Amino acid sequence: MTPDELEAALRRIGAERYHNLHPFHKLLHGGKLNKGQVQAWALNRYCYQSAIPRKDAALISRTEDPELRRVWRQRLVDHDGERSGEGGIARWLALTDGLGLDRDYVVSMRGALPATKFAVEAYVRFVRERSLLEAVASSLTEMFSPMIISERVAGMLANYDFISRETLAYFNARLSQAPRDADFALAYVKREARTPEQQGAVLAALEFKCDVLWAQLDALYSAYVAPGHIPPGAFRPAGTE
Amino acid sequence: MTPDELEAALRRIGAERYHNLHPFHKLLHGGKLNKGQVQAWALNRYCYQSAIPRKDAALISRTEDPELRRVWRQRLVDHDGERSGEGGIARWLALTDGLGLDRDYVVSMRGALPATKFAVEAYVRFVRERSLLEAVASSLTEMFSPMIISERVAGMLANYDFISRETLAYFNARLSQAPRDADFALAYVKREARTPEQQGAVLAALEFKCDVLWAQLDALYSAYVAPGHIPPGAFRPAGTE
Repeated sequence: MTPDELEAALRRIGAERYHNLHPFHKLLHGGKLNKGQVQAWALNRYCYQSAIPRKDAALISRTEDPELRRVWRQRLVDHDGERSGEGGIARWLALTDGLGLDRDYVVSMRGALPATKFAVEAYVRFVRERSLLEAVASSLTEMFSPMIISERVAGMLANYDFISRETLAYFNARLSQAPRDADFALAYVKREARTPEQQGAVLAALEFKCDVLWAQLDALYSAYVAPGHIPPGAFRPAGTE
Repeated sequence: MTPDELEAALRRIGAERYHNLHPFHKLLHGGKLNKGQVQAWALNRYCYQSAIPRKDAALISRTEDPELRRVWRQRLVDHDGERSGEGGIARWLALTDGLGLDRDYVVSMRGALPATKFAVEAYVRFVRERSLLEAVASSLTEMFSPMIISERVAGMLANYDFISRETLAYFNARLSQAPRDADFALAYVKREARTPEQQGAVLAALEFKCDVLWAQLDALYSAYVAPGHIPPGAFRPAGTE
């Protein structure tokens, strides 16, 4: 494949497998969930958010290229911030606060679904253990995130009276960060993946990452929508005790 | 041990095992080496310098504490800089440039001693694989570095006409960075190592790190001082071809 054919193949994966297609997101954005279900989404997704700097540091740890390390370091800054209370993780906690969840409970991850935690740790391990090229490629879901974020912010603001623009501040920041990150990572894989084996590995890495995101929504749907089997120990929305 | 007893035990390790005691450093600082031997030191030590951000990112990747990640991230900034040409690794390359070494050759690490590379990678792996507490403790050689740096800069400037204050700029930066880093890491291990097992692991981690530094000087001594057995493929100073 030429680099542009590789990009087209990556975009096809997004069009078929990105989690904006998942029924849970359609319910979330369409205002079809109750507050307890939105709480469950937010506290599970905290597991994912809070693991991202560990994933990004794992990638930095694997490259001998100072320039790649410097560029990727910005992701640590974006998520952890310059000081306490700043950065993407803190903004995510503003969302869970706004939803009325206890912050210590969210941060403890005690109420998160086991399937969420397994999927998130599979992602961290993938970046630690696979090739650097695959590690970079696994970040490429960012290519598709501006679309879902726009839908999400508009849909949630319109449909839920317990959601405000302030509590969705996380997504505003991502609207500028994600395209910058995705442009860099896409240029990297287009440049570095030259053999059929490398290009296949890049495509498989993006499919893997789509699976990581999708599996989290499957678990939410199963526990909190239908059949509604909340696993032992997991968060139970008020009224479902 | 109380926290202060633990600190005293750590300082005893430094007094007995830190590489300022190694004969190679005495020769280096005392002006007893020729330019080829100083070149060998600088190009081998580049392997160590260039691995430090991978080591630090590995530590960041292992902690779920955003505050620890933020504090430790400063080490990435110190070594990799904000942009190309800045940071500790770039300053190390200014030293190897000043010594007349070809930069591409230094960066390729082709001329480095195998024992150097093994020791450096043992350090990176230690931080990836041991407990977070041990990973932090292994950085504590910084407690002892200001002393050796002062000796080194004064000794090298006085004794070698091929060394200038500019080429030693790396060490000036470290004189402020190292104590800040060491203070943080020392407070961390004094706070976190409470059981005898944890305190033993902290002491062993510092001994391990002293071994990593010492082994690099043993290898330099063996190859370039006495008996002078330069391994196949390693850097050969001009005149020893």
